[in-house]
Amino acid sequence: LLRDRPASTAAMLGAFGDEALLRAALAFEAALSRAEADERLIPESAAALIIETCNSAPFDVAELAADSAFAGTLAIALVRRLRAAVGARDAAAAALVHLGATSQDLADSALMLQAKAGAQLIVAEGRALAQGLEGLSQAYAGTPALGRTLLQPALPITFGLKAVNWLLGIDAGLRRFERECDTALMLQLGGATGSLQGLSFAVVERVAAQLSLAVPTAAWFARRDGIAGLAASLAILTGAAGKIARDLSLLAQGEVAEAFEPRIEGRGGSSAMAHKRNPTGCQVALSAALRAPGLAASILAGLPQEHERGVGGWQAEAPSLAALFELAHGALAAMREVIDGLEIDTTAMHRNLQAADVGEDTGHCAALVRRALDRYRAGH
Amino acid sequence: LLRDRPASTAAMLGAFGDEALLRAALAFEAALSRAEADERLIPESAAALIIETCNSAPFDVAELAADSAFAGTLAIALVRRLRAAVGARDAAAAALVHLGATSQDLADSALMLQAKAGAQLIVAEGRALAQGLEGLSQAYAGTPALGRTLLQPALPITFGLKAVNWLLGIDAGLRRFERECDTALMLQLGGATGSLQGLSFAVVERVAAQLSLAVPTAAWFARRDGIAGLAASLAILTGAAGKIARDLSLLAQGEVAEAFEPRIEGRGGSSAMAHKRNPTGCQVALSAALRAPGLAASILAGLPQEHERGVGGWQAEAPSLAALFELAHGALAAMREVIDGLEIDTTAMHRNLQAADVGEDTGHCAALVRRALDRYRAGH
Amino acid sequence: LLRDRPASTAAMLGAFGDEALLRAALAFEAALSRAEADERLIPESAAALIIETCNSAPFDVAELAADSAFAGTLAIALVRRLRAAVGARDAAAAALVHLGATSQDLADSALMLQAKAGAQLIVAEGRALAQGLEGLSQAYAGTPALGRTLLQPALPITFGLKAVNWLLGIDAGLRRFERECDTALMLQLGGATGSLQGLSFAVVERVAAQLSLAVPTAAWFARRDGIAGLAASLAILTGAAGKIARDLSLLAQGEVAEAFEPRIEGRGGSSAMAHKRNPTGCQVALSAALRAPGLAASILAGLPQEHERGVGGWQAEAPSLAALFELAHGALAAMREVIDGLEIDTTAMHRNLQAADVGEDTGHCAALVRRALDRYRAGH
Amino acid sequence: LLRDRPASTAAMLGAFGDEALLRAALAFEAALSRAEADERLIPESAAALIIETCNSAPFDVAELAADSAFAGTLAIALVRRLRAAVGARDAAAAALVHLGATSQDLADSALMLQAKAGAQLIVAEGRALAQGLEGLSQAYAGTPALGRTLLQPALPITFGLKAVNWLLGIDAGLRRFERECDTALMLQLGGATGSLQGLSFAVVERVAAQLSLAVPTAAWFARRDGIAGLAASLAILTGAAGKIARDLSLLAQGEVAEAFEPRIEGRGGSSAMAHKRNPTGCQVALSAALRAPGLAASILAGLPQEHERGVGGWQAEAPSLAALFELAHGALAAMREVIDGLEIDTTAMHRNLQAADVGEDTGHCAALVRRALDRYRAGH
Repeated sequence: LLRDRPASTAAMLGAFGDEALLRAALAFEAALSRAEADERLIPESAAALIIETCNSAPFDVAELAADSAFAGTLAIALVRRLRAAVGARDAAAAALVHLGATSQDLADSALMLQAKAGAQLIVAEGRALAQGLEGLSQAYAGTPALGRTLLQPALPITFGLKAVNWLLGIDAGLRRFERECDTALMLQLGGATGSLQGLSFAVVERVAAQLSLAVPTAAWFARRDGIAGLAASLAILTGAAGKIARDLSLLAQGEVAEAFEPRIEGRGGSSAMAHKRNPTGCQVALSAALRAPGLAASILAGLPQEHERGVGGWQAEAPSLAALFELAHGALAAMREVIDGLEIDTTAMHRNLQAADVGEDTGHCAALVRRALDRYRAGH
Repeated sequence: LLRDRPASTAAMLGAFGDEALLRAALAFEAALSRAEADERLIPESAAALIIETCNSAPFDVAELAADSAFAGTLAIALVRRLRAAVGARDAAAAALVHLGATSQDLADSALMLQAKAGAQLIVAEGRALAQGLEGLSQAYAGTPALGRTLLQPALPITFGLKAVNWLLGIDAGLRRFERECDTALMLQLGGATGSLQGLSFAVVERVAAQLSLAVPTAAWFARRDGIAGLAASLAILTGAAGKIARDLSLLAQGEVAEAFEPRIEGRGGSSAMAHKRNPTGCQVALSAALRAPGLAASILAGLPQEHERGVGGWQAEAPSLAALFELAHGALAAMREVIDGLEIDTTAMHRNLQAADVGEDTGHCAALVRRALDRYRAGH
Repeated sequence: LLRDRPASTAAMLGAFGDEALLRAALAFEAALSRAEADERLIPESAAALIIETCNSAPFDVAELAADSAFAGTLAIALVRRLRAAVGARDAAAAALVHLGATSQDLADSALMLQAKAGAQLIVAEGRALAQGLEGLSQAYAGTPALGRTLLQPALPITFGLKAVNWLLGIDAGLRRFERECDTALMLQLGGATGSLQGLSFAVVERVAAQLSLAVPTAAWFARRDGIAGLAASLAILTGAAGKIARDLSLLAQGEVAEAFEPRIEGRGGSSAMAHKRNPTGCQVALSAALRAPGLAASILAGLPQEHERGVGGWQAEAPSLAALFELAHGALAAMREVIDGLEIDTTAMHRNLQAADVGEDTGHCAALVRRALDRYRAGH
Repeated sequence: LLRDRPASTAAMLGAFGDEALLRAALAFEAALSRAEADERLIPESAAALIIETCNSAPFDVAELAADSAFAGTLAIALVRRLRAAVGARDAAAAALVHLGATSQDLADSALMLQAKAGAQLIVAEGRALAQGLEGLSQAYAGTPALGRTLLQPALPITFGLKAVNWLLGIDAGLRRFERECDTALMLQLGGATGSLQGLSFAVVERVAAQLSLAVPTAAWFARRDGIAGLAASLAILTGAAGKIARDLSLLAQGEVAEAFEPRIEGRGGSSAMAHKRNPTGCQVALSAALRAPGLAASILAGLPQEHERGVGGWQAEAPSLAALFELAHGALAAMREVIDGLEIDTTAMHRNLQAADVGEDTGHCAALVRRALDRYRAGH
């Protein structure tokens, strides 16, 4: 918590926390039983009892975690408990818990339910950040500033051109992420090897409908491009937030002093220097942008999984994917707060531009900003 | 060459080779001059001379490489030579070479021209592989085989279900790659800081049209999500090929012996054991799938580039992106050859299935294969 | 917890948990005050009160985490609380808490204290695994088995040669890790910019002695090769455990059936198939080996940190380093348990060897195993 | 060439080029025959003919590359040609070429010979850079400068403290690299499965002695920690060069203007702005530091290779390892040139320090520099 919390948000840590995972896993089991009863694979009474148990039975997360570690999967540990709780009231129904499903059905579907909740947070925060950037771009569309290339003074730009490029980066990142969600946020349900032995496609459709997840063409146990696409798109989105942070941390340097994170009492202080005002939001986004690529690479590296369900590959994905959601949301939230309260010193911008002695011709910057904003707005 | 050639194809190494890069760079300069003349920014005669020089002047690649290393960019070295060659016939025209453009305009546009050529190779090879997988899926839709999970015998499947999952992986990978190409394969043209100072948006549109590249909303010098999206999608596609190779290398094990790479005289031999038949195609695809994630991560890590054009970040991308194209094509081509000539031993499949003693109920496999093929075909 | 626990051990999760971090941070503050009193920089009475507060004051981890996220660092949040608790009894002493130190002094030193505890767990587990592998190598030094290359039958080996290569990999990995610990497990203490302003080198030496950490030549705030070396060596060690898991998961395949993880009631079961016995230990190690490289790469990517103390770089390291310790320990512990109870079927080995029809000449395998064991033992 | 040359040096590209690889492979074959004759495994006359052929036969690199790609390994293609050339003069001797060796013996040994040559270049360049940094540290040990943390003005340091930290980073990186070379630069010779069938340990020792490579305890075909250690240490060393580049690129900003790369006619120019002076050396090192982590991760990800010799894993290493040598040397050479001619503006340092209004107390900086230099010198 002490190390994860500063890098993310309470909301996203919650979405990928133990309670949420447990709820998602139980929702999967409940939906499965409901669908199996609807398809007459199990008695209605058994389904009702299983669903009631899923909704009400208390589970100790620490015990479940230790058991999962021992058994090798959460499903084994959780299903055993569910069966015991159901069996205490109806021995026959106990055997119908998790009927036809396999551990990875539960693990992947629960992960997708968490990802779906996480995706809503990402999009909401990302769109709020984009709105801030849109305002910034428009307000400073014509404000001259020094353009810098290879960290050297180059030719003039307007500050709005810088801001609209941030916007285009975030917008493109959100679109890519949403496209990936469209194809990736699917139910997983195939049974041991994906053959749906003992199940039927109608069960798959009913479970998917209940959980509001897409229906897969076939089980994707060892076909992980959806997960990989999510991971990569989160890393790219995080990088787009990191780009804003990179620029702002450079603009906030003492010698440049063109833009500053908002002054928030108690934030950005130094434990050694009372006078100091650290770019804490930028730090969060830059940290996230450093960590995300390696996490995405881990998931990409796991793509060639063995046969119908691999050994080690899919088990490695959930922690990395959760971390990517957490970092992306942390970075977006940090930048949104920064952009919403950004302090801009146009006098310093003018001073630095003059000192660079590169003239004041900002070329077509203002027109480019308008053009970019028009296109951005047309896309929504 | 000795180390790169076995991992890729001659065609893709050519598309990202020195000659292709030089041609692409010269095509950019020629198109720029043409557009500037059409927009009356430079005289028609100067444009004609510059274009003629681009088309005919001989350049020594080794010298250019050494000069580029010294100067810091290819553009400096190339433009200097172009100006000298033009200037020998018309001193005034020499100053109009590369007018208004910056080094990264040339570097990025040339990279995108190479990427466009590379993308055509990727899609052609990927579609050919998909066609082979489609045939395989259909032919073996109902052929019983042992399903294996965590590398252990599990429940029966059909071989067609395995094959159609390979197909879905390749198809999804190709679609993602094509989507990324749609947004990424853009012209770069912004001048020193993206302000189009001394240029105009009409010039941008004319150059893009000549080079058949998309028109950017604004210069994307430090907004690299397009490049990152290409890189990630190539890594995912390579992973989909690696998945096929993983399964086939496991199926070809002596004790399993269910499927084999085609026998090709002189390929897959061993320098130590004359009797041996190595899965050479699988080796190529698995190697590629190991290398691709790190290369993609390098590009993701470079996203937070500094200000209007960064220092080090964009310069790091081209070699990694070229390697990703080369590896993806190498992996797809290797798998296409393997799938087209795949030897399948259904007797061994039956024997292994019986030995596992898990019954012969293949569940809904055949129906799932048909369903997947219908969807796949409907998408094309 | 539900996702982290199966990938690691309770002991290592504890070593890098919130409580351990808090204890380490307070130990740093207590040692600093002790040293400053010994060097007459602060009154003895103030030191005594600060130390007592560090030892006894209750801190709510969830509150601290939220505050750290807000303030930007744990140090700010923790020192504020410490000062309040001390100040309640002696207002003057409150100002002497954390005197001369900066946030990163606390963060890095606490991380190193956790790493030191983690390193002991790693070495203990690794040595226990090595001992098991030594026994295995010796017992099967001359047992013929099929050697396999490119997943194809090749020439005979002995099973002991396979085992001794596992041993050499683990031993080399442990040696590298221990070498990296020798140089990396250092105190961090430099004050705001490493100048030791307001402190002295004697204070550094005294704090280091109290915490049993090495004395740094100079503060290493933005010189992170030690952290990077730790990270890389943990990834390599994890890979050595993954290599054992790769081989064992392949040997345990139904068609090969030469070696099996120990039968442990309740472990390795399947939620779908009662007959199944999954290689759960191998799964843990293979997952770890997939995740470790990307985590190490994240730390390597952060090396070029800015100026005296960077923005984003060092903040990104601790979660990745903690994960690397957790994964390495999880992988080693899983493999130790597997190796200690490994079931080996020499009849199957013989059968597979005969079926491959490659003769029975195991060459110099037995002598190579003896040679390797002699060298291994001589090194300890 | 056009893309690789600016990122490295002609010397290192040569060390890992096709000609060097071919020479190394032929040196291995010649040494093997010599050793086999000395151990009476083949006739002296056959060895003499094979060695003469290795030394004199012409090989076309492009043909060899195409053949290697087709056959799956360089060894097959090269040995076939060698046998043909030898067989043209002595049919019996042809069969004795490569006797007892396998493809990976040749591939790994050749890679280690190239790595050995590359290591000498790395150490020479790294030591030259260290010497420059030593001088810089000493010269500016007491020169006040602004210390910056989180890219904000913090407390004063001396410029020598910054420089000596660069030195400590490079020195630590070189020491780690040299340690890894000590264990990794080994001969590979085990025959098909490492059993030395048909060979003997005496042959291994004789070949190692001829090639000046260390003698392996046993063949390390699927035990790749040495390669991984080399890769990681090169990435860390590259990061240490990148750290210098990060700081210098920040110090060279127009608004900071404290230090500059040397003015070299024709280097660091801009194709768009004649007035501009780009930090070209820093760009090379920062690019290298971005690319190295992903390349190292690729090699780490390949550690769990299959059985006696894996499929895909070891084949993926050589291109990544070569690239790491090339990038490390490029980064060190770029920084050496920059440091040797570094322009330092102490007036600007003073001005920026005053503007930050943080006093002029540089604490123990000068003493820390002396202490660090003493330790550094004592270690050599």
